[in-house]
Amino acid sequence: MKETILQHRSIRRYRPDPVPPDVLSQILEAGTRASTTGNMQVYSMIVTTDPGLRQKLWEAHFKQNMVLEAPVHITFCADFNRFSKWCLYRDAEPGYDNFLSFFTAAIDALLVSENVALAAEAHGLGICYLGTVTYMAKKFSEILQLPGLVVPVAAMVMGTPAEDPPLTDRLPLEAVVHNEVYHDYSPADIDNLYREKENLPASRKFVEENKKKTLAQVFTDVRYTAKDNRFFSREFLELIQDKGFMNNEG
Amino acid sequence: MKETILQHRSIRRYRPDPVPPDVLSQILEAGTRASTTGNMQVYSMIVTTDPGLRQKLWEAHFKQNMVLEAPVHITFCADFNRFSKWCLYRDAEPGYDNFLSFFTAAIDALLVSENVALAAEAHGLGICYLGTVTYMAKKFSEILQLPGLVVPVAAMVMGTPAEDPPLTDRLPLEAVVHNEVYHDYSPADIDNLYREKENLPASRKFVEENKKKTLAQVFTDVRYTAKDNRFFSREFLELIQDKGFMNNEG
Repeated sequence: MKETILQHRSIRRYRPDPVPPDVLSQILEAGTRASTTGNMQVYSMIVTTDPGLRQKLWEAHFKQNMVLEAPVHITFCADFNRFSKWCLYRDAEPGYDNFLSFFTAAIDALLVSENVALAAEAHGLGICYLGTVTYMAKKFSEILQLPGLVVPVAAMVMGTPAEDPPLTDRLPLEAVVHNEVYHDYSPADIDNLYREKENLPASRKFVEENKKKTLAQVFTDVRYTAKDNRFFSREFLELIQDKGFMNNEG
Repeated sequence: MKETILQHRSIRRYRPDPVPPDVLSQILEAGTRASTTGNMQVYSMIVTTDPGLRQKLWEAHFKQNMVLEAPVHITFCADFNRFSKWCLYRDAEPGYDNFLSFFTAAIDALLVSENVALAAEAHGLGICYLGTVTYMAKKFSEILQLPGLVVPVAAMVMGTPAEDPPLTDRLPLEAVVHNEVYHDYSPADIDNLYREKENLPASRKFVEENKKKTLAQVFTDVRYTAKDNRFFSREFLELIQDKGFMNNEG
C-alpha cells in the first residue's frame, strides 16, 4: 500500500492492450470504498473505451496523444442527479441544486478517483490525470451526455504503461505542511523551499526552451496564464450554473 | 494496497495516544506523492495537535466528539498563496485569483487527502473526514489564520482507533458506473439500485427514529436540508471571494 503510493507517477505512453473487465471492475469497486459525505455517494464514473468516443475526448483534451493510446478513459463526475431522482421517487423534496452540494459531490468524486488511481497502479496499470476536463467541461458534458446536476471534475486515462518514467520532483515536505496554524511565507522561505526545484536540470532546460528568465515565468506566461484561467473560470462556472447548481438563495 | 482500500471505514472513537512524529511525517510524505496539476502542488496541510486549538476546531465542527478525542486534526487547503508569492518574487505575474485556479487547487488538496487517509490506515491508524469544514469554512479560516488564496476544502481527524466498526454499505457498482456515456436513471433503475440500501435494518431504524416515511426524507428533511445547503453555499462562496478567488473577468 505505502509502496504503491510512494511509487506513483503519471504515465503518458500506453500499450494498446485492453484492461480485462474483471480487473477494471475490481479497480472501480476500490473506488467505491472511499468515504463520501453522509454515504450519499453523489458521484459517477463514466468508463469510455469506444474508439470513436475516445477520439472526441482526445479533441476536447487538447489532442493529448495519451487519450488515443490508452484503452480506458474514466470521467469522474459530481452527481446529485441520481440521489435527487431517488428523493423525488420517495416522496422527498431534494435541495441539492446549490453550490455547496456541487462542491460536496465534487469532493466525493475526487476521493473516489484517487482510490481508482491507486488500485489501478496496484494492479500494475498506469494512469494519468487530465486537468483539461475542467477547462473544457462544457465539451465533455456534451460528449458524455451529462444531464442536470452532473458536472465532470476529474478525468484519467488508464492502461498498460509503455514507459517507466522516474518519480517527479516534489517540494520539501515543510513547504506544504503547517504546524498548528498556517504560517505565511517570507521571501527567504520561498527561496529555501523552491531552490532545489529551480536548480533541477529539467527546470533549467524548461526555462531556456521557453526563452524565459525564471521558472515561475514559464508557468505564468506560457503554461497557466491569467487570460486562460479567467476564460476557463467563466466557462466552468457557466456549466455549474447550467447544470442547476447555483440556486443558493432562500 | 488493495486490502487497505477495501478495508477503509471511518473511525469516530479514538484512544488518546499521540501519533509518533516519524509516522506522521511518513503519512504526510505519502500525501505529497499524489498527482497535482502541472506539479504546482497548490495545496497545504495544516496539522493541529494543540488541545486549545482542537477545542476551537471541535466547536466549529458542530462539537463532534471525535475532534476532541483524536490526537491529530489535519486541514487540507486549496492554496495558491505560496505559488503566487513564488511568482511575485521571481519577476512573474501570477494569474491565479480566479475560480478555475481555486478549483484546481481544491483538486490537488483532495487527492492529497485521500493518499494521507490511506497511508494512515496502512500504518494501523484510523481517520474520519469531516464535511463540516466546508460548511464552516469561514470559522476554520479564522482559527487557522488562513491568508488570501487559501481556502479549506477537507479536514480529517487521525489517531489510534478505539472501535472496530463494520464496513459501510454501498450501492451496487452499476449504480455509480456508466459505460461509454452517461445513462440516466428510470424509476425502475432507482428502485433496483436503492432496494438493498433501503431494506437494511440500520436504514429502517433510521427512518423510524426520525419519524419519517422514507429513508430519502431523512436526508432531505433532517440531515441535509435545502435551507442549510443554501445558507452554507452563500457562506462558502463568500469565503472563496474574500480569499481572492473570484476575479474571473478579462
